[in-house]
Amino acid sequence: MKLLVTKDELINRYKQVRMNSEQICSPLQAEDYVVQPVQEVSPPKWHLGHTTWFFETFILKFHAPGYRLFDPQYNYVFNSYYESVGARVIRTNRGNLSRPTVKDIYRYRKYVDNAMVEFIGKCSLTSELIHLIILGFNHEEQHQELLYTDIKYILGHNPLFPPYSTEKLEMTSQPGRTTKMMVIPEGIYETGYEGDGFCWDNELARHKVYLNVFEISDSLVTNEEYLEFMEDGGYEQFQHWHSEGWDWVKKQHIHAPMYWHREDGQWMNYTFNGLQPVNKEEPVCHINFFEAAAFATWKGLRLPTEFEWEVASLLFEWGKRWEWTQSAYLPYPHFSKAPGALGEYNGKFMVNQHVLRGASIATPAGHSRRTYRNFFPTNQRWQFTGIRLAK
Amino acid sequence: MKLLVTKDELINRYKQVRMNSEQICSPLQAEDYVVQPVQEVSPPKWHLGHTTWFFETFILKFHAPGYRLFDPQYNYVFNSYYESVGARVIRTNRGNLSRPTVKDIYRYRKYVDNAMVEFIGKCSLTSELIHLIILGFNHEEQHQELLYTDIKYILGHNPLFPPYSTEKLEMTSQPGRTTKMMVIPEGIYETGYEGDGFCWDNELARHKVYLNVFEISDSLVTNEEYLEFMEDGGYEQFQHWHSEGWDWVKKQHIHAPMYWHREDGQWMNYTFNGLQPVNKEEPVCHINFFEAAAFATWKGLRLPTEFEWEVASLLFEWGKRWEWTQSAYLPYPHFSKAPGALGEYNGKFMVNQHVLRGASIATPAGHSRRTYRNFFPTNQRWQFTGIRLAK
Amino acid sequence: MKLLVTKDELINRYKQVRMNSEQICSPLQAEDYVVQPVQEVSPPKWHLGHTTWFFETFILKFHAPGYRLFDPQYNYVFNSYYESVGARVIRTNRGNLSRPTVKDIYRYRKYVDNAMVEFIGKCSLTSELIHLIILGFNHEEQHQELLYTDIKYILGHNPLFPPYSTEKLEMTSQPGRTTKMMVIPEGIYETGYEGDGFCWDNELARHKVYLNVFEISDSLVTNEEYLEFMEDGGYEQFQHWHSEGWDWVKKQHIHAPMYWHREDGQWMNYTFNGLQPVNKEEPVCHINFFEAAAFATWKGLRLPTEFEWEVASLLFEWGKRWEWTQSAYLPYPHFSKAPGALGEYNGKFMVNQHVLRGASIATPAGHSRRTYRNFFPTNQRWQFTGIRLAK
Amino acid sequence: MKLLVTKDELINRYKQVRMNSEQICSPLQAEDYVVQPVQEVSPPKWHLGHTTWFFETFILKFHAPGYRLFDPQYNYVFNSYYESVGARVIRTNRGNLSRPTVKDIYRYRKYVDNAMVEFIGKCSLTSELIHLIILGFNHEEQHQELLYTDIKYILGHNPLFPPYSTEKLEMTSQPGRTTKMMVIPEGIYETGYEGDGFCWDNELARHKVYLNVFEISDSLVTNEEYLEFMEDGGYEQFQHWHSEGWDWVKKQHIHAPMYWHREDGQWMNYTFNGLQPVNKEEPVCHINFFEAAAFATWKGLRLPTEFEWEVASLLFEWGKRWEWTQSAYLPYPHFSKAPGALGEYNGKFMVNQHVLRGASIATPAGHSRRTYRNFFPTNQRWQFTGIRLAK
Repeated sequence: MKLLVTKDELINRYKQVRMNSEQICSPLQAEDYVVQPVQEVSPPKWHLGHTTWFFETFILKFHAPGYRLFDPQYNYVFNSYYESVGARVIRTNRGNLSRPTVKDIYRYRKYVDNAMVEFIGKCSLTSELIHLIILGFNHEEQHQELLYTDIKYILGHNPLFPPYSTEKLEMTSQPGRTTKMMVIPEGIYETGYEGDGFCWDNELARHKVYLNVFEISDSLVTNEEYLEFMEDGGYEQFQHWHSEGWDWVKKQHIHAPMYWHREDGQWMNYTFNGLQPVNKEEPVCHINFFEAAAFATWKGLRLPTEFEWEVASLLFEWGKRWEWTQSAYLPYPHFSKAPGALGEYNGKFMVNQHVLRGASIATPAGHSRRTYRNFFPTNQRWQFTGIRLAK
Repeated sequence: MKLLVTKDELINRYKQVRMNSEQICSPLQAEDYVVQPVQEVSPPKWHLGHTTWFFETFILKFHAPGYRLFDPQYNYVFNSYYESVGARVIRTNRGNLSRPTVKDIYRYRKYVDNAMVEFIGKCSLTSELIHLIILGFNHEEQHQELLYTDIKYILGHNPLFPPYSTEKLEMTSQPGRTTKMMVIPEGIYETGYEGDGFCWDNELARHKVYLNVFEISDSLVTNEEYLEFMEDGGYEQFQHWHSEGWDWVKKQHIHAPMYWHREDGQWMNYTFNGLQPVNKEEPVCHINFFEAAAFATWKGLRLPTEFEWEVASLLFEWGKRWEWTQSAYLPYPHFSKAPGALGEYNGKFMVNQHVLRGASIATPAGHSRRTYRNFFPTNQRWQFTGIRLAK
Repeated sequence: MKLLVTKDELINRYKQVRMNSEQICSPLQAEDYVVQPVQEVSPPKWHLGHTTWFFETFILKFHAPGYRLFDPQYNYVFNSYYESVGARVIRTNRGNLSRPTVKDIYRYRKYVDNAMVEFIGKCSLTSELIHLIILGFNHEEQHQELLYTDIKYILGHNPLFPPYSTEKLEMTSQPGRTTKMMVIPEGIYETGYEGDGFCWDNELARHKVYLNVFEISDSLVTNEEYLEFMEDGGYEQFQHWHSEGWDWVKKQHIHAPMYWHREDGQWMNYTFNGLQPVNKEEPVCHINFFEAAAFATWKGLRLPTEFEWEVASLLFEWGKRWEWTQSAYLPYPHFSKAPGALGEYNGKFMVNQHVLRGASIATPAGHSRRTYRNFFPTNQRWQFTGIRLAK
Repeated sequence: MKLLVTKDELINRYKQVRMNSEQICSPLQAEDYVVQPVQEVSPPKWHLGHTTWFFETFILKFHAPGYRLFDPQYNYVFNSYYESVGARVIRTNRGNLSRPTVKDIYRYRKYVDNAMVEFIGKCSLTSELIHLIILGFNHEEQHQELLYTDIKYILGHNPLFPPYSTEKLEMTSQPGRTTKMMVIPEGIYETGYEGDGFCWDNELARHKVYLNVFEISDSLVTNEEYLEFMEDGGYEQFQHWHSEGWDWVKKQHIHAPMYWHREDGQWMNYTFNGLQPVNKEEPVCHINFFEAAAFATWKGLRLPTEFEWEVASLLFEWGKRWEWTQSAYLPYPHFSKAPGALGEYNGKFMVNQHVLRGASIATPAGHSRRTYRNFFPTNQRWQFTGIRLAK
């Protein structure tokens, strides 16, 4: 893997990445940093602390001579799921912690940032260290995306519906767009990451797959199309749904994508700008795998597999929505886990989730790749997820 | 009911009560105001908002001509359980709300305080109005006590165990005290509130009860005595427990009062000053009805009834702990609910709870009465609860 | 306690009691003996086995020389809640046990019956033994009542609504009855069991209570009156309900007493004879404490306390319904538990339940007493419960 | 699809299949037919009724002129999950139904059997009808396997551990066997059903897949090997487990395969012959996907994909255990659902389950195929499941 070469490049990118996280939080009030309305949404202050803990735990603690932990108790607070790195606050309790305060955590960031910059400047850069540091960048970028989605959840589930910003952050409509199905011939294709940049372990082991001839849309399903599904009784007809999806619809009384509210006969949508009328030209967003699959079934079509998506993705624009695929999240043929705590990241989640491909408007610039394998449980909706159809 | 007479007295008391609530919160960080670690503990900012909403909803809205609500949506956020006053955030969700912020709520308090002071100054004081205003004082005082207990829960369940204060707020030990059982003769006694001051509806309807001869302790059970119970296997022997209490012990793996932690062979106790060694001379605290009853059974004694307590309370000191009684919380013979929303307060909770008598170190000065009937579910421990034995 | 004196009397009563249990089950199919649709309803075969285990465990095992247990594993299967007598199948699992079969259990009964009759014939009758044997009778009679209520639940919750019998077992209407409130003067009354017959430990310690003047109805609330409550929106108006009761109504979508079904605009009622139109003249049945209290509140009246009931019960007919009282189930002033396993029966349940007084059409003849204190959780409806009003 | 041609063949096979189901139940007591200890285990009488309902509902009701339903209410009782065919008893309630009785259900079977035999004899056999009838055979055979696994669960979770039979039904050890890894070259293979016999819809759409070179074992993992995993701390080390699997292990306190019990220092195994010492030479059984994957990880190997299994299965013996694969249960490239209720069978379950290949000792003779795709949730263990390793 060929990576950034100079210390200056590393330090600059370090500063940039770290600043970006704080930038995302700049419109927040202290209180917004604290709450955890549902298990999958973490408090913003936890994200800020956890990404810092990552650099401290995996780099400074082991590689920086004489480094003193900012606070030895923070490991307990900011460890996410690394069984190798000791006990931790259980996930559902993150929103119960008023301390450390937001100010404490910004002090923690500053302390670790100073130590990291000093460390990169002084250390003898091995390829293992470079890899760890760049892993830290990518890890923090993943949490930047989660910051956006979690902040949206926190504000969008508040009865006052406060806007996050006055900028038009979510505008993604394409007036005048046409949709067509592209045909991809059958054959053997290669899939998986190739190159010398950064990628996650789950993209590695590039390998051949056989694809039948298939068709795939060059654009995402819009709110307008999704409204047709809703108006045609999509949420009331079991035929379109997986059995587990249908249970979810009935039990949770689901009638629309997350963040949609019916007000005075009109569908409103909570966005970063507050409640807005649903924009019909935008790609539908915040739907889970069950909804994506039900929509496709209703259309007489299906979702693409992750391999079809990867092969065809050269031919269409992507990056506005994480796109649900028909593929379960499973190891590639020669997948192997990294040794130690870092190996816990991807492998242990490879069951009962589905792969999303692409990227979303919340994904940091430069963080996306055609081979990137994102994954979420099939009932989750708080990410910026969308639908591309195949046949 | 004879009550405060002059407007100045009312205004002064109003200011004092309102200031006290804010005083209690003065050591808090913004983040401490927000969280709700368990359902029964409300975020401090919610208490500050809810007590304000009470004055706004029951007084200003109906009685102050031209009063404009600070924010019409606050009713949804700050209504506790008044079915008559519209929809509300469900109790378990209070800790999910980052907005209104703490600053918003202090602005809300100021806005309502100005309006209240102006209103009291200008209005024509009817006895109904006086009653409502004094009800508001007592209501806020109840929430002052909850502020103490909820803040203690929030800080005391944080893995960093931050102290609330450096003052010795909980010191209640009585070195050199002796304990003796006092004998109260059988006979007909009167019980319930009498007088022209303030009391809650559940204390009214003074009535006769017949008491058998009984004995009651002149002092509270200490941590030392409770430790004997623990060391004698109190939490491991079903014989001492109610069936429901025993289920609770086993399911929740209870071994000690709330806030006790075993560290290096020593029992530590989270107090407002942080973790401290258990003080053996203090009255045991933060035990629920099941524990109080099990301790009494182990001693071969029992808890007093609320009537025994009220009759005997002239003969002993009380006020450090809310004292569990053997009495279920039920209506007095001629109990009647007030009409309208305010009538919801006490009557609808008169089932499946137990009465506590006395007051605690967290009770505001002047808020306690011998006839006061506090009540909590039998499994709750976050109040400053203690044990007095009877026979 | 003066009790039955001759061995013949004991043997005859033993045979009679034991036969009655089997008589109650005679209309059942083998399958009806097995199921447990909800936790509080035990499979009939469990009742038959458990009452047998009671005689075996508390009498034969300790007092009959050379007695061999029918099957040593049965203790695990048929122990109900006696912590002193070892591990047991948890209550919710009783309906998962296909073995021992019904035939096995009838063999078990015959085996224990033979041993008991032989034992009574041969033993030297101490008063302790007499007491234990009579306790066994009363214990079995309690389970006879549960057999009726549990069988009704099992058949009445089957979608085929099979009748239990063609006899008119539940006919209790009183055409032409008039209702009047009787006035009972205030004063000191005595309450609790007195005499030398059998009673449970919770009735003992006869003691004085002071009652205010009160009024009590000479008859039970009828289905007709309860229908008025329903038609007046009784189940839709929170004002009548305890807070906990209102949660129950909303969460469980309750609109009518248990066993009532709306069919083609008519209220039908599952009875031992199958589905029948609701008989307006019958006392309302299968309502829980919350419903009883809500009905009383709607009427502007209340439920009697258990002491009022006991005092007034000389003046009215009772025995058709267990009558909910306003009294929580608590120990009498000088209540004391029996030593050993038998002492577990009543004391450990004295929290968070309410007292029912009287008896029902399912109570065995001779099993009822004016001082009898039955008790159930406030949300339970599967007993034959009814309402008598007081003021 | 070429299928059975003569009516006599159909009638004989019908009789044989139907007799086999009853044969499996012949050792049962009436009570064993009734209980449902966990949701996934249905009462045997339900299986007997449901398979009968299948013939009645999908064949007789629509195709046999003048056919009268045995009992119109049975549709509600015996519909499994067909949303198209009306309301049904929810799955968790199957064990609450004492009626219809076992005898009723045998009468129902006889009634439908007579009607089916008469109908086949008289009808004009279309290919659709032949298909439906053969579908009914295969459907009943699937339930025969479930009868075995559910009966084992019911008896094996009874504290008396009653044997099902004295025959050695589960003996599958292979003394003297050697294990070797076979190497399969990379290339394009075809997978999916081909031929004119019966298959399920999920096997259809034969298609090409590309397989990398892989190795696969010619035999199943034995109890001896699994014990090594256990003794090496397999259940105590998170490294081997999926995150979701590790949660399951900890929450459920899992230490061994289902049906294993530690007694006096020895591992015992509940089998159809009752409790027996674990036979080390037998293939391990009753482990779920998490355990299979953890074992493979511990060995430094992996599970095969379903395509690897299908390709390699010509080279080894199979049929003793359903073999967990690494493949999630997903549609084949050109999978299409049948129209109507029968199309509900397979498609709607294609999410969050894993594929099992092969067959087990409980699979009816003639019911297995190399292309058969069985599927279960990853936490289930009550099937006869085993492990084959790959690399």
